[in-house]
Amino acid sequence: MKKITYFTTPEGAPEPLETSVFRTVRFNEVDPMGIMWHGHYASFIEDARVALGDKLGIGYQDFYNHGVVIPVRQFHVDYLASLTYGKRYEIKARLFYTDSARLNYDFTFLDETGRVMARGYSVQLMVNEQDKNLLFEWPEFTRPFLQNWKEGKINLK
Amino acid sequence: MKKITYFTTPEGAPEPLETSVFRTVRFNEVDPMGIMWHGHYASFIEDARVALGDKLGIGYQDFYNHGVVIPVRQFHVDYLASLTYGKRYEIKARLFYTDSARLNYDFTFLDETGRVMARGYSVQLMVNEQDKNLLFEWPEFTRPFLQNWKEGKINLK
Amino acid sequence: MKKITYFTTPEGAPEPLETSVFRTVRFNEVDPMGIMWHGHYASFIEDARVALGDKLGIGYQDFYNHGVVIPVRQFHVDYLASLTYGKRYEIKARLFYTDSARLNYDFTFLDETGRVMARGYSVQLMVNEQDKNLLFEWPEFTRPFLQNWKEGKINLK
Amino acid sequence: MKKITYFTTPEGAPEPLETSVFRTVRFNEVDPMGIMWHGHYASFIEDARVALGDKLGIGYQDFYNHGVVIPVRQFHVDYLASLTYGKRYEIKARLFYTDSARLNYDFTFLDETGRVMARGYSVQLMVNEQDKNLLFEWPEFTRPFLQNWKEGKINLK
Repeated sequence: MKKITYFTTPEGAPEPLETSVFRTVRFNEVDPMGIMWHGHYASFIEDARVALGDKLGIGYQDFYNHGVVIPVRQFHVDYLASLTYGKRYEIKARLFYTDSARLNYDFTFLDETGRVMARGYSVQLMVNEQDKNLLFEWPEFTRPFLQNWKEGKINLK
Repeated sequence: MKKITYFTTPEGAPEPLETSVFRTVRFNEVDPMGIMWHGHYASFIEDARVALGDKLGIGYQDFYNHGVVIPVRQFHVDYLASLTYGKRYEIKARLFYTDSARLNYDFTFLDETGRVMARGYSVQLMVNEQDKNLLFEWPEFTRPFLQNWKEGKINLK
Repeated sequence: MKKITYFTTPEGAPEPLETSVFRTVRFNEVDPMGIMWHGHYASFIEDARVALGDKLGIGYQDFYNHGVVIPVRQFHVDYLASLTYGKRYEIKARLFYTDSARLNYDFTFLDETGRVMARGYSVQLMVNEQDKNLLFEWPEFTRPFLQNWKEGKINLK
Repeated sequence: MKKITYFTTPEGAPEPLETSVFRTVRFNEVDPMGIMWHGHYASFIEDARVALGDKLGIGYQDFYNHGVVIPVRQFHVDYLASLTYGKRYEIKARLFYTDSARLNYDFTFLDETGRVMARGYSVQLMVNEQDKNLLFEWPEFTRPFLQNWKEGKINLK
């Protein structure tokens, strides 16, 4: 697997954090060409992003509980090979470190043999839910998480 | 409106071809944050792409009738402002000229005041439906269309 | 067209109110069997229901502005003939009169020749948004509408 | 749990066959009222139906491999309580015996405490894929399955 980098990380940044989910292509996700419609990848990708965010304590609900919403600012998919009905795929999400108040995730779709079927990324901003102002720093509640990340103390098996 | 270019066109290429569709955000397209879920943009974008492709005689069905399928190879969205329930938006699609056998579309979402809400692009390949081989040249049936385009003879609307 | 009645109306009830929307089947709504997936009818039906509710001043937003949400309690579809890609269909919604606090809609899908492709209905309850209690009477704001309906004064062309 | 019967089975018919799937409500399946949109139940229901059909050797693909498609003729949902974001639900599917060439499934949604959240059913016909004629008898390949069912030899744990 060729190394693909959508994000550049600052000097000395900790390694990305990652997790995977597995999902089987549904009948209604397949288009008349017999392959998964390109627009459905967003839902598979969200499954992986949500799984990783929740494990790290920085999911939608965690942010929301602290008055912050995290809208998607950028979304990208590179489709390499088609997904087909009834097949099960791994979707791996990785969170990349950044000092700015952003969630930079990338994604890899793999079939059961480990073949890369698609890649992509998403960027989310952080917005104060009350005044709709953009946050320029990670909110207070995420500091312990960021500290642990930098110290290599996060253990996602 | 700042000029945004996702695609570079060769020297002397004809101007992009464009059309617009209009669509109102449905109740079930709005997420718990009160805005249209980012994954639904693919469907709005497809509406605009299909409208333009069909007008030009190079839609899904046109290709399929000539034994060619046109899978999406790349998909990208930049979200600038949120779409909300019940509001009607314009989605403008533009097809960019390229000598290689690709469909390079970009997209702009506008609200009723003309404000740009989102931008994006998609790249589609052309694949022989029988042997699944990639086409390196535009198929025969598209030649008159390409010729007319280069000669500035295509009149949309 | 055979007369189909999903709802019984009380003696002396006014005639149902109706409107139609038109919608074309999208590429991603068609399943591998080449027909519209049965689960997508709910969205077409909602388009028609929303159109009629909004025209009558008793749409989602109208109820919500008066502190009432209107969850779907029952949903039913009878599929008679398949909908296919790129074809445009009429979806007719009718609201049936009832004294109880319910929205009883039925639906008919028609192709361009007037052939009935599907029929269905939905029942919605009315719930106080604050205390989540079920309403047993139509809320105050709907009274003038109900009165006009009973007096045959509603003109939906 | 009150006994609910959508289907009547003939005298001496074998007991329904059943299986369950589990699914968590996604962010994009929740509507602005904070509950799962009623139209998404069809996908949850299909997950359960597909799981049971595949286990029994009478899934979409099994029929299709024998030249038969199984379009949905009727679909019904009774919504009893709302499904909410991030919660995991059991969807139980049961297949009811019938002599005619139909697939009669019913469905029950349960939360983690066993509370019934929704119920529904679907009826599918069997259609010859080539000539589009309706089948009046179960196709040949399903006979051993039906025989085993009648003899109580199917063991779905």
